[in-house]
Amino acid sequence: MTPGRLVGVGLGPGDPDLLTVKAVRALEAAPVVSYFAKAGRRGNARTIADRWIPAGAEELPLHYPVTVEIPFDHPDYAAALSRFYAEAADRLAGHLDAGRDVALLCEGDPLFYGSFMHLYVRLRDRFPCAIVPGVTGMSGCWTAAGEPMTWGDDVLTVVPGTLAAEPLLARLAAADAAVVMKLGRNLPKVRAALAAAGLLERALYVERGTMAAEAVMRLADKPDDVAPYFSVVLVPGRGRRP
Amino acid sequence: MTPGRLVGVGLGPGDPDLLTVKAVRALEAAPVVSYFAKAGRRGNARTIADRWIPAGAEELPLHYPVTVEIPFDHPDYAAALSRFYAEAADRLAGHLDAGRDVALLCEGDPLFYGSFMHLYVRLRDRFPCAIVPGVTGMSGCWTAAGEPMTWGDDVLTVVPGTLAAEPLLARLAAADAAVVMKLGRNLPKVRAALAAAGLLERALYVERGTMAAEAVMRLADKPDDVAPYFSVVLVPGRGRRP
Ligand SMILES: C[S@@+](CC[C@H](N)C(=O)[O-])C[C@H]1O[C@@H](n2cnc3c(N)ncnc32)[C@H](O)[C@@H]1O
Ligand SMILES: C[S@@+](CC[C@H](N)C(=O)[O-])C[C@H]1O[C@@H](n2cnc3c(N)ncnc32)[C@H](O)[C@@H]1O
Repeated sequence: MTPGRLVGVGLGPGDPDLLTVKAVRALEAAPVVSYFAKAGRRGNARTIADRWIPAGAEELPLHYPVTVEIPFDHPDYAAALSRFYAEAADRLAGHLDAGRDVALLCEGDPLFYGSFMHLYVRLRDRFPCAIVPGVTGMSGCWTAAGEPMTWGDDVLTVVPGTLAAEPLLARLAAADAAVVMKLGRNLPKVRAALAAAGLLERALYVERGTMAAEAVMRLADKPDDVAPYFSVVLVPGRGRRP
Repeated sequence: MTPGRLVGVGLGPGDPDLLTVKAVRALEAAPVVSYFAKAGRRGNARTIADRWIPAGAEELPLHYPVTVEIPFDHPDYAAALSRFYAEAADRLAGHLDAGRDVALLCEGDPLFYGSFMHLYVRLRDRFPCAIVPGVTGMSGCWTAAGEPMTWGDDVLTVVPGTLAAEPLLARLAAADAAVVMKLGRNLPKVRAALAAAGLLERALYVERGTMAAEAVMRLADKPDDVAPYFSVVLVPGRGRRP
C-alpha cells in the first residue's frame, strides 16, 4: 500500500480569497482535512478554509489540551504540548498509513512560527510530505495598514512579543523595520519596549488583518492594552528611496 | 470622470499557482497591466503572471534605465532611478486619470522590498489604491528547502546582502534565524559574514525558489559564489519545540 502524503496548506492571513490557487487545489483534492483548534471551538484555520473544503472530506480536528492553569514557561506546559503533538501525529499517521492524503491547515505560512511544524518534524521521515506556502499574517497586516515595510537596505526584525522585556527592547532598539508577533497579553510590555526604543510614534497596531473584524491604528492612539491573539505591531522602515 | 484605481498585485515567489485567488481576480478584471522589466526583457513578474492575464488587457511595461555604468551607491544612480520612477508614475497616472484601473505586477509581496512601493508613494495621494498581498520570495525559498524557519521565541532577521560587511556580520551574529536577500554579486561577502558569525554550517542557499530552475543546497556545499538575482540564504532557527 502506498502511504498517503502529508500536505501542509498555508491559508494566508484570514481573507479566504488570500489562499493561493495551489492551496485551493490541495484542499479540493484532500480526502482528510485536519486542523488545530481550541477545545470546543471550530478554530480560525477551519473558518478561513471553509468555502474551499469539499463536502465529502473527512475532518480531523486536533484540539489543544487545556493548559490555562499551567504557566506558559513551566516544564509541565511543554510536556503537555509535547504529548499532544505526539498523539496528533499518531492520528495523522493512521490515515497516512492507510494510504489517505491528509491536508493540515495552517494559518499564514506553514513554516513561519506554525503549529504545523511540530507535526511535520515528527512525520517527515516516515511519510511523503508537501508544503504549500502562504501569505503570512504580517503581510496581511502591513497590507491592511497600506504601509511599505522595508526599503533598500532596511533590515527587518520579526520579534515574538513573548520575549522578556530586556531582549525585546534590545531587538527593537536595533531594528530598521520591525514586526512584533504574538501580542495578546504581552502588549503592555511591548508598548513599554517601543517607547524605550523611541519607536512608539512610528508603531502601528493591526488586529485581525484581512479578516472581517480588521482594525488598524497608530499604537499611540490605542487607548487600552487589550489585544487578541491575531494582532501585531508594525514599525515600517524608512530606508533609501530614490 | 471617476479616476481609475492602482492595484498592486503580489504574484508570490514564482510558481504561477502561488498567486492568490484575489490576485487572479484582480488580473482578470484589469484593463491595464503594468510591470517592471529590464530594457529588452519581458521580465520575471510578467512571466509569472502570464497565464492569468486576459487576452484583451493593455500592457504597460516599465523598463528600468540602463545603469550598469553608474556605481550603485553613486548619487547619479539614485537620480536616474528617481527620474525613472517619476516618469513611470506619470504613465500610470495617464491611465488612472482616464478612469482605467491599472494592475501593477509585483514579485512576492508588494510592500516587502518591492519596486511597486516607489510608484505607490508617488500616486497614493492622488488616486484610489488597493494592494493584494503575496507569498514572499523567502517563504517560497524555505518551502523549497522544506525547513521550518522560526520556532517559539526565535527572532527572525531579514538582511539585504547589499549591506556593508561590518553591519552584515553584526546582524547575522545577533540572529536566531536569518534570511539574506539580494545576493547576486554580494554572495562572497555574505559567505564571509556567515563564516565569521559561525553560521556557515547552518546556512542553506536557495536559487529561484518555486520556479522551474529551482535549486536548494547547503551553502557550504555550493562550490562557487555565482548567484542569480533570485536567490537567498536561509539560516533556520532552532528555538523552543515541545
Ligand atoms: C503562531 S503565529 C503563526 C504565524 C503564521 N504561521 C503566519 O505565517 O503568519 C501567530 C501570530 O501571528 C500573528 N498573526 C497571524 N495572522 C494574523 C492576522 N491576520 N492579523 C494579525 N496578526 C496575525 C499574530 O501575532 C499571532 O499571534
Ligand atoms: C527587490 S527584492 C523583492 C522581494 C519581493 N517583494 C518579495 O516579497 O519576496 C528581490 C529579492 O528577493 C529575493 N527573492 C524573491 N523571490 C525569490 C525566489 N523565488 N527565489 C529566490 N529569491 C527570491 C531575492 O533575494 C531577490 O534579490
